[in-house]
Amino acid sequence: MSSTWLNKVKWDEHGLVPVIAQEAGSNDVLMFAWMNRDALAKTVALGEAVYWSRSRKKLWHKGEESGHVQKVLEIRLDCDEDVVLLKVAQAGDIACHTGRHSCFFQKFEGSEKDGAWETVEPVLKEPDAIYK
Amino acid sequence: MSSTWLNKVKWDEHGLVPVIAQEAGSNDVLMFAWMNRDALAKTVALGEAVYWSRSRKKLWHKGEESGHVQKVLEIRLDCDEDVVLLKVAQAGDIACHTGRHSCFFQKFEGSEKDGAWETVEPVLKEPDAIYK
Repeated sequence: MSSTWLNKVKWDEHGLVPVIAQEAGSNDVLMFAWMNRDALAKTVALGEAVYWSRSRKKLWHKGEESGHVQKVLEIRLDCDEDVVLLKVAQAGDIACHTGRHSCFFQKFEGSEKDGAWETVEPVLKEPDAIYK
Repeated sequence: MSSTWLNKVKWDEHGLVPVIAQEAGSNDVLMFAWMNRDALAKTVALGEAVYWSRSRKKLWHKGEESGHVQKVLEIRLDCDEDVVLLKVAQAGDIACHTGRHSCFFQKFEGSEKDGAWETVEPVLKEPDAIYK
């Protein structure tokens, strides 16, 4: 594809761009992932979030297994043109593979010398029930 | 430093972790940056966001020039322990070096074949007035 709007994105040395998925309405940050050029083009064409899975090295239509698709309502690009922000409607209210609303469920407590990450968000649906 | 909580973070091959800064209250996503181990430790110790500048290759106490510091109210870690989310109070209501509230001021309009990034957020203060 030779689309000008895709060329404006500053893809990194791996051809990827970081992507933040934010829930429309609540503005909760749901997850963070990566896209390549093809993933961003498909996201626009489909109206649903399609990421690049760095571990599986393939396109990942979010929700393809879990049903927790993300309808994309808005796409933003940052000042340096190297980060994308999606505003999405999250199917099932669950974005995280652990069955939680958001992936950011561990909260830092304590001080620099004596700190810890505490789980502060509930599991809404057990992963076993999500990934049958 | 040998802090256990810092060891739990999965630093990438460059010793960095992606960081999302979100405004407490509005929940607006303000900016995206990177931290190394030292930056995250200093952020906790100081209570203000300290990033790692990949271009300048040094610690960057956000607001050190502009005065637009970010008071850190909460720190979250994601499910894979490789992305950090900060909830911040943004001094001056301006996070972006362009003088805008958020760095994500370019909105995608159009279709896959005929799309464009449109600037949709105002400049609150001219950069010349910020960086004297």
